[in-house]
Amino acid sequence: MLSTYQLKDISADTKARLLLRNTDDGGQIEDSVKQIIQKVAQKGDKALLELTEQLDGVKLEKLFVEVTEISALAAQVNENERNALITAYQNIERFHQQQLVKETKVETTKGVTCWRENRAIEKVGLYVPGGSAVLPSSFLMLGIPAKIAGCKEIVVCTPPQKNGKINPYVAFVATLLGIQKIYLLGGAQAVAAMALGTESIPKVSKIFGPGNQYVTKAKVLAQSMFGTAMDMPAGPSEVLILADKSANAKFIASDMLAQCEHGADSQAVLLSTSAELVEKVNIELKTQLEKLPRKEIASKALIISYAILTENMGDLIEFSNEYAPEHLIIASDDWENISPKIINAGSVFLGNHTPEAAGDYASGTNHTLPTSGFAKAYSGVSVDSFIKKITFQHISKEGINNLGPTVEILANLENLHGHKNSITVRLEE
Amino acid sequence: MLSTYQLKDISADTKARLLLRNTDDGGQIEDSVKQIIQKVAQKGDKALLELTEQLDGVKLEKLFVEVTEISALAAQVNENERNALITAYQNIERFHQQQLVKETKVETTKGVTCWRENRAIEKVGLYVPGGSAVLPSSFLMLGIPAKIAGCKEIVVCTPPQKNGKINPYVAFVATLLGIQKIYLLGGAQAVAAMALGTESIPKVSKIFGPGNQYVTKAKVLAQSMFGTAMDMPAGPSEVLILADKSANAKFIASDMLAQCEHGADSQAVLLSTSAELVEKVNIELKTQLEKLPRKEIASKALIISYAILTENMGDLIEFSNEYAPEHLIIASDDWENISPKIINAGSVFLGNHTPEAAGDYASGTNHTLPTSGFAKAYSGVSVDSFIKKITFQHISKEGINNLGPTVEILANLENLHGHKNSITVRLEE
Repeated sequence: MLSTYQLKDISADTKARLLLRNTDDGGQIEDSVKQIIQKVAQKGDKALLELTEQLDGVKLEKLFVEVTEISALAAQVNENERNALITAYQNIERFHQQQLVKETKVETTKGVTCWRENRAIEKVGLYVPGGSAVLPSSFLMLGIPAKIAGCKEIVVCTPPQKNGKINPYVAFVATLLGIQKIYLLGGAQAVAAMALGTESIPKVSKIFGPGNQYVTKAKVLAQSMFGTAMDMPAGPSEVLILADKSANAKFIASDMLAQCEHGADSQAVLLSTSAELVEKVNIELKTQLEKLPRKEIASKALIISYAILTENMGDLIEFSNEYAPEHLIIASDDWENISPKIINAGSVFLGNHTPEAAGDYASGTNHTLPTSGFAKAYSGVSVDSFIKKITFQHISKEGINNLGPTVEILANLENLHGHKNSITVRLEE
Repeated sequence: MLSTYQLKDISADTKARLLLRNTDDGGQIEDSVKQIIQKVAQKGDKALLELTEQLDGVKLEKLFVEVTEISALAAQVNENERNALITAYQNIERFHQQQLVKETKVETTKGVTCWRENRAIEKVGLYVPGGSAVLPSSFLMLGIPAKIAGCKEIVVCTPPQKNGKINPYVAFVATLLGIQKIYLLGGAQAVAAMALGTESIPKVSKIFGPGNQYVTKAKVLAQSMFGTAMDMPAGPSEVLILADKSANAKFIASDMLAQCEHGADSQAVLLSTSAELVEKVNIELKTQLEKLPRKEIASKALIISYAILTENMGDLIEFSNEYAPEHLIIASDDWENISPKIINAGSVFLGNHTPEAAGDYASGTNHTLPTSGFAKAYSGVSVDSFIKKITFQHISKEGINNLGPTVEILANLENLHGHKNSITVRLEE
């Protein structure tokens, strides 16, 4: 069932194809997103209401819901679900809380003291997907680090449901986060609104959150056109599994299908030292797929998924580092030896009892992660994504006497005599 | 001499203009940079040699210099200058070294352990400006954190001088950093080559470094076209000075001129609670400007520079936070009370004996900083810029029994039954 390759037989061309994930849209999406941005820039709220009617099929009176309506909707969530969302909240908070560290001061030269201080990004925008796939978990993953960082204004956009309201789970998460207002906006128009600001939607400095190709393109364009920062570029979700004979075929198949049910363009890659395991995984995939409600989507994703076999785990780790997976599962009892060799990955799941789904929802780590090989240069979302680290320095009279002459020489060799003079006037005082 | 405003008289429109720095080129630069990128994509090294002849007026035999030639050039640097560069190196290293912190593990639920580990970005590209403004200091500011992070491949591009060689100071810094090979490439073509890779130039995952508008535009385009990460968007350099009557007019004028000598589009802003101080600064500016070799450039920059007066320091701090300066000097004996209120800035210089030039060269902090208001969302370059933080998690059998039921509920409410099943199969084992 899975396309299976022997690592030694893979040509350079085939390898390049197996590593490639970027889905180029040929510029078509860019054109429509640019039109949406232009419309929002020109007509503000009016454009947003028109676009929402046109694209989401919902005619809104106003572009937001406020705290009383949020509370009313949140009350629809049953107790079991509430408790699960609260547990996830607590674990995510526990893990992210430790990321806000106060750094110590360094005296680099006698009298010259340097340090960094954290400051929250004041205005951030969170995009929470809605419509067909409502993801309250993404709201938790973005909202909690934003709260821990201390962001003053957290603007949340989520597309309205057909009834013009927001999803009750999203409403409940809003109450947990203490968010008082949610904007009923989806797609590229939500990103455009947060990047530009309109009568109703506050302008933000950085935009976070997953979304379809239009949302992603809008984030990229907002960054290059207006300098609005963003969490990271995003593509279809993916998992790579490194497995040896200690792995459990049933567990692996379940993890691969969990990935594949996301979308037809999702990918699950199995790298294994055991041919027998791959055989068993194929059998399990067939059985488990039958019972899956999103079977059709998952089947399509399985077509672009594949397995690679070789005897040497080291070679598989190398392939994994080249692939740079968003999610990496090390399905092996030997995970403690393998994990230090992992160089490129978004989030790593160690051992046979650590399913990706745990990290997707509730173990505490963030699920907003770099896809499509971006893990070579990007980290997943964390509290770091919501703060800036500002450098501070204080130099005493003694300090400038010690360091000044060095700076004068360096400014001089770069022919920046004004720089040199700013030292000289202080040394001459 | 400085355009001076009373804060209370500033209209909303004037304020918007005073805060604005983005220089839009109307798309002309984008078109030429896109052509350069296309040429490099199609013809590789051949394009690079042609573009270097055409744009830099230098006909090269090969696109790089190697270690023997680097050493020979480095030997031209005199001892005083060597020592100054070494002192800067040591201070920068001392300050940046502490940024690489090992985080502790968090047990979020009994049996569920999560943590982050640092991994260097394997392949990074450093752009070191050359030609008219040679900046060995920028090479230090990028190379040292890259070394501390542990980047495996550090690709350095710098434009060739008219004699086809690199600058001796750049060569000396390369020997300090242990860089064995430097690529003779400048402008947008250098960025394109590092983003795409050619026969001679290795492809990198992230590109760092200051440059002119073409270099900056190329970095932005490489990010949106190929997903090559970059340090930050960059505009003209700027300083903002918060000053009260304890400030020294001579020092302030020298700091403003140091900023203004960078380029005609640089800006120095003086916010003061003392009208008398601004008067004195104007007198000092006149005197000091006369002696400045780069007087013509600085005079132009002074035209777009300005002062704002009001009695209340709090109001000035608020303006400064809205401006979000690259460099902020707090020229006041009261800096300890002011500095906690600073929310948006790249790097902050505290007190009357802390000139910006110290941080530009040798105090230890990084001088690659967010300009044009980007300090609202971006930090300056640090070791963080050269690493990814990968999340790891391990869940024991006990852990999945504790956390699993919560994940099942959450996956179910998002209608992701494959996710739920990946838990169920493990709970049922």
